[in-house]
Amino acid sequence: MVKKAVILVSGGLDSATCLAIAAEQGFEMYALSFEYGQRHQAELVAAKNMAKLFNVKEHKTVHIGLDGIGGSALTDPGIAVPEGGTEGVPVTYVPARNTVFLSLALGWAEVLHASSIVIGVNAVDYSGYPDCRPEFISAFQSLAQLATQVAIQGEPINIDTPLIDLTKAQIVERGVALGVDYSQTVSCYQADDKGRACGCCDSCLLRKKGFDDAGIPDPTRYVPGFTKNR
Amino acid sequence: MVKKAVILVSGGLDSATCLAIAAEQGFEMYALSFEYGQRHQAELVAAKNMAKLFNVKEHKTVHIGLDGIGGSALTDPGIAVPEGGTEGVPVTYVPARNTVFLSLALGWAEVLHASSIVIGVNAVDYSGYPDCRPEFISAFQSLAQLATQVAIQGEPINIDTPLIDLTKAQIVERGVALGVDYSQTVSCYQADDKGRACGCCDSCLLRKKGFDDAGIPDPTRYVPGFTKNR
Repeated sequence: MVKKAVILVSGGLDSATCLAIAAEQGFEMYALSFEYGQRHQAELVAAKNMAKLFNVKEHKTVHIGLDGIGGSALTDPGIAVPEGGTEGVPVTYVPARNTVFLSLALGWAEVLHASSIVIGVNAVDYSGYPDCRPEFISAFQSLAQLATQVAIQGEPINIDTPLIDLTKAQIVERGVALGVDYSQTVSCYQADDKGRACGCCDSCLLRKKGFDDAGIPDPTRYVPGFTKNR
Repeated sequence: MVKKAVILVSGGLDSATCLAIAAEQGFEMYALSFEYGQRHQAELVAAKNMAKLFNVKEHKTVHIGLDGIGGSALTDPGIAVPEGGTEGVPVTYVPARNTVFLSLALGWAEVLHASSIVIGVNAVDYSGYPDCRPEFISAFQSLAQLATQVAIQGEPINIDTPLIDLTKAQIVERGVALGVDYSQTVSCYQADDKGRACGCCDSCLLRKKGFDDAGIPDPTRYVPGFTKNR
């Protein structure tokens, strides 16, 4: 029987690695992306390219009006994206974003009779978002078991987090070994319309550190004027 | 200090009653509705009217592309709405709908620093949907505690379900006592563009039984040709 997985694909480094891992595990893959009022469309273009490169069975981009709710630098143009690391939960945190994304993945997984939802959350080199922590994932797993008709009927939907205990360097190593072309992924919170990274935001810094620590040349495409080794 | 609540408002009987209860409890009310690809817009018009009647502080209608996911008679025009009661979970079940709705309410509640999310689920006279059961709500409550920055910092968000143990007749009695004008609410799965009910779907039957059992004249506006007392 075909094993199906819904994979959350943002267009960034982590979710590209998730696609590679799910492919290796033999899943029939259904990629899910969201247009939620984020600052740039470059990541959705990257998501589309990644889904195509990994030959997914279907790729859906679902619209959600999270920008109507606001409260984050990623969805509210009135809040600036900070440069460099910050203390505590940063303003780039989008309230309940992973809960919303996983809920929609749960709905699609139920329709597809998929056995897994794959999400590239990481609790090592991450931005401190509450909805990336293992205890959050565990609570969502319990919810998934009760929320769906299929689970009640004996077809559980697993929330797979293949990256949760890896450092960014380990993620990069894993992906490179599986053939991921990271130059085609966009992690930057404020990439330009060509998908080129700012090099200064928290997400860029974490990503760059991953390549540096892994001793792998950073293939990220940066905006003109940004020097990788400054 | 002002107590704030996000109230999920569908435009139907149950959520109108929730508005009345939250108003009585002294909450500053934030009404949240969803345009999710449902069959008709009449319920959104009713939601808007209800929010206005109860003088909410703000009413948001958020778009979610649940119709892209399909799998339900309510979001897929290719699946017919059944007439009369059915065995098991009916085809009007929208996969993960309440999980998705509560997730977005959670995001808004976090932005507002609201202490409650009010949802009109009911586990007595209901359609058998898995995401209306008390154990589902309890799992979502646990998730809410872990998913948000505010909860971690000591401001929990409660999931309030004031109707969960009431029969439809008790809900109607409560609402009438609080002055709800149920003629302005739309419960029907396939109401016409004037908000008139079919009288035949599961939701109409449950609603009609509520008024009958309560001994309260049914104020529902039905489509021409439908006889209430057939």
